[in-house]
Amino acid sequence: MRRQITGFSNPTVKYLRSLRDKKHRKRSGQFLVEGLRLLEDARSIGRLPQMLVMAEGRDDHALLARLEADVMAAGGEVITTTPDILSKITGKDNAQSVTGVFDEWDTRLAALTRSAAPIWLVAQALRDPGNLGTMLRTGDAVGAGGLILIDECADPFSAEAVRASMGAVFTVPVAQARWEEFLPWLRAGEGQLVAASLRDAVPYRAADYRAPCFILVGNESQGLPEDYEAACDLRVTMPMLGRADSLNAAVAAAVLGYEVLAGVER
Amino acid sequence: MRRQITGFSNPTVKYLRSLRDKKHRKRSGQFLVEGLRLLEDARSIGRLPQMLVMAEGRDDHALLARLEADVMAAGGEVITTTPDILSKITGKDNAQSVTGVFDEWDTRLAALTRSAAPIWLVAQALRDPGNLGTMLRTGDAVGAGGLILIDECADPFSAEAVRASMGAVFTVPVAQARWEEFLPWLRAGEGQLVAASLRDAVPYRAADYRAPCFILVGNESQGLPEDYEAACDLRVTMPMLGRADSLNAAVAAAVLGYEVLAGVER
Repeated sequence: MRRQITGFSNPTVKYLRSLRDKKHRKRSGQFLVEGLRLLEDARSIGRLPQMLVMAEGRDDHALLARLEADVMAAGGEVITTTPDILSKITGKDNAQSVTGVFDEWDTRLAALTRSAAPIWLVAQALRDPGNLGTMLRTGDAVGAGGLILIDECADPFSAEAVRASMGAVFTVPVAQARWEEFLPWLRAGEGQLVAASLRDAVPYRAADYRAPCFILVGNESQGLPEDYEAACDLRVTMPMLGRADSLNAAVAAAVLGYEVLAGVER
Repeated sequence: MRRQITGFSNPTVKYLRSLRDKKHRKRSGQFLVEGLRLLEDARSIGRLPQMLVMAEGRDDHALLARLEADVMAAGGEVITTTPDILSKITGKDNAQSVTGVFDEWDTRLAALTRSAAPIWLVAQALRDPGNLGTMLRTGDAVGAGGLILIDECADPFSAEAVRASMGAVFTVPVAQARWEEFLPWLRAGEGQLVAASLRDAVPYRAADYRAPCFILVGNESQGLPEDYEAACDLRVTMPMLGRADSLNAAVAAAVLGYEVLAGVER
């Protein structure tokens, strides 16, 4: 279906605008993906938006034309509107000229297959959606089976997380769970839980990693709770030669992820 | 000196507010540092703000009292104001209860001492101040001599970069230079220039790193210009097992930085 929207007060505009807000995303089960590059990444792996919203007066673009055709062929909706209305939807002065609306997917632990990969990333109380997206992007690079978000984390379907993931939100499975759910799930099968830690830890380059290896990083300001660290099979430490005692959470996950990738026994 | 500001239209409020803007920071040579934690990090290594701005009605805090006394003793100014005015200055609804104003420092290449460290981080056209701050933080951790910003980069004195650096802006030297200045400076002394690259590259874990090793990462969306890569002494590649062909710039710098730290011949 194709239609045009010219009024700011159109209910669809109001709905799309509401998707910038986590509460409304949870209620509707949909999220926004901004920009042709991300939408093309999604399309290339067979993920199409339910709705495509394009600004009038955009340059013709072969990729956009194909995307439009694919969305129509799949029974989706293509909406044309003004650049101003698109800016209102995305909340950006210089909105990308196209935005897609996708259905969120199942993010329960039960949807993961732990034998699918030797490396998994696990983040606890990760607050920054940029860090979350960066971890997804790193997960894609190291071939991680997925990113597991423990306790209250940023929303993987927020615009900032999607953007920082550079499309990895579509390729790297995400699960969300409380620690009380995660630990029994982990212990019900194979899996080595490894924490980046300052306490009672072995040097990260001398550690014995075993697949499937679950790399756990903690909250940006508090780090991991002590009992979470204690529940790990292995605590590793990275050199900290300066004044600080920790790395950015996404950086810690990446340095460990690449180390595990090089050293894990499969 | 100590004074109280109660009016939104006070010229000092206007001045402080202007420091959120890069253009005004460059003109005045000053920048803002928000929050007691960062200010205390700075104080602990002997860096004091010229001006300390505190919200009234804050909780008494021993660290803040000491900071206040140190700023006064050093001839600085302590300003008390309302939470609303402080929010107006920082542009945040929930402003930290204290903000400091520091003089910017010399960021010319000439201020660096290349023999000071075996590792240096170099970023080209880095646009994201969060990435910049994260690279400073990583630089602190791997004992880097400094971060060299090539071409048009984000401002290391922006609030976002300072915050992401977690105080490393005070401990890790920063230099800003055009490529045309940087390359002759580098070649005028010892130094191995290493790029994270996809072209004609050796695996990053098998490469021969030599101190002082300058790790160069490119712009977030374009990567490094071809001729910059060609000018490097060594091009290394990291495994990319997924669909993406690059890592976040700050992540790439960290993974390489830790590899060089482990393997560099000094």
